[in-house]
Amino acid sequence: MPILNKDMTLCISLAARPSNLGTRFHNFLYEELGLNFIYKAFTTQDIEGAISGVRALGIRGCSVSMPFKEAVIPLVDEIEESAAAIESVNTIVNDGGRLTASNTDYEAIAQLIAEHRLDSASTVLVRGSGGMAKAVVAAFRGAGFDDLTVLARNETKGAALAEKYGYAAVTEDPAPGARIIVNVTPLGMDGTDAAAQAFGDDHVAAAEVVFDVVAFPAETPLIRAGRAAGAKVITGAEVIALQAARQFERYTGVAITPDQVARASAFSREG
Amino acid sequence: MPILNKDMTLCISLAARPSNLGTRFHNFLYEELGLNFIYKAFTTQDIEGAISGVRALGIRGCSVSMPFKEAVIPLVDEIEESAAAIESVNTIVNDGGRLTASNTDYEAIAQLIAEHRLDSASTVLVRGSGGMAKAVVAAFRGAGFDDLTVLARNETKGAALAEKYGYAAVTEDPAPGARIIVNVTPLGMDGTDAAAQAFGDDHVAAAEVVFDVVAFPAETPLIRAGRAAGAKVITGAEVIALQAARQFERYTGVAITPDQVARASAFSREG
Repeated sequence: MPILNKDMTLCISLAARPSNLGTRFHNFLYEELGLNFIYKAFTTQDIEGAISGVRALGIRGCSVSMPFKEAVIPLVDEIEESAAAIESVNTIVNDGGRLTASNTDYEAIAQLIAEHRLDSASTVLVRGSGGMAKAVVAAFRGAGFDDLTVLARNETKGAALAEKYGYAAVTEDPAPGARIIVNVTPLGMDGTDAAAQAFGDDHVAAAEVVFDVVAFPAETPLIRAGRAAGAKVITGAEVIALQAARQFERYTGVAITPDQVARASAFSREG
Repeated sequence: MPILNKDMTLCISLAARPSNLGTRFHNFLYEELGLNFIYKAFTTQDIEGAISGVRALGIRGCSVSMPFKEAVIPLVDEIEESAAAIESVNTIVNDGGRLTASNTDYEAIAQLIAEHRLDSASTVLVRGSGGMAKAVVAAFRGAGFDDLTVLARNETKGAALAEKYGYAAVTEDPAPGARIIVNVTPLGMDGTDAAAQAFGDDHVAAAEVVFDVVAFPAETPLIRAGRAAGAKVITGAEVIALQAARQFERYTGVAITPDQVARASAFSREG
């Protein structure tokens, strides 16, 4: 990497607990493509001040993570449909002081539904009712799926999410049979829930597609069970790489290939 | 340079027209010393928003150039004597959201007066009455010089500056004879004034010390004339390197050697 220079364009992320993933993903591709950009993760106690800084310093792009995805909505100038539909922003692009917000998580999930040619006639069971579950459910609705059930321990949140998109909600594990099962809870994620399998083997056995939004590790207990059962699997690692790729393209204006996304993703997961 | 990571500490500069100097100076030393820092120049149309961003993003250090040196005074929490004395800030250090302002131009000039063992009994002629002239005149006052004359075409500014520090002001070239002559105008600077020699040969012939605050080029017509006349010379390149060194130490907490300053300065002037 050449020594930094004054003309480099800065992109940042804002999160309560920044990971190194975006910083490594974006800088890897800046270097590979010879772009005069740098990217660095930040945290903040003052989201308004941080967004003022994005504007005033001409920071080109700002990735937004928990807990700021809703808080930034009143702070930007324009909300794209991807973010408006789910009232959640993960991407801000600064065009000369005008901030446009979007949600590349939604876009990434929509793209994965399309690329994996998921059949919109399939029954879908989604576990979870948080911010990311909103992106998942909205993307299935956008892709024309009519038969989706939200499984959420939190009855109020689950019902609200399902109702918003015209789907059903349950609080207890339904009978197995959904053709597509999607985990959008932290079950299986590195940490205290690492050993948890978000859906039982009976659900996995009935499913054609096992989709886990948990990104760390890529091989969760659910994904391993899906592979073992011969289901098609879609991992959170794919979601996170694709959403970062869409951010990269918005920030730089440069399109990247699936191979570049895969290599940047692999690099980003190493450190 | 290793690929950037999320834990790097960012330092920035704010100027109407950023140069590459600070970016190269600081990053050179970060790399040499293995510090997990990055530095980048920025410009802004909104100094309040930019300082909000410094606070909210935890930007560790912020170098301040024209035209923001006075405008930032009400935006910080504490003003050190170096900046308060001349009502001009060129350095902001952020300690967990608390901003302390100082002026390392003043410090650098004071240090050069001491290092070059300038005799406080000498007569001094200072040409100029802008922000940097304030730092120069205040530093001579601080070093105990009693006989100093400010030469400024702008009678009001020249008189105000001289009066503040108990010195005399003139608007027309005085008779030669000052033992120390100091240029703090743009005369001799790269650009339209590049060929101008800020003091005539008669002043240079009478001087023991020729001090030019112009940093680009290091060898101004005045400095060349001073060398040719056998005077001791102090260049603007020394001022700018020393003031950057003092900023570096404040931002990082790491002391640097004169050799490191010299090499970082040489590197910074290459690009």
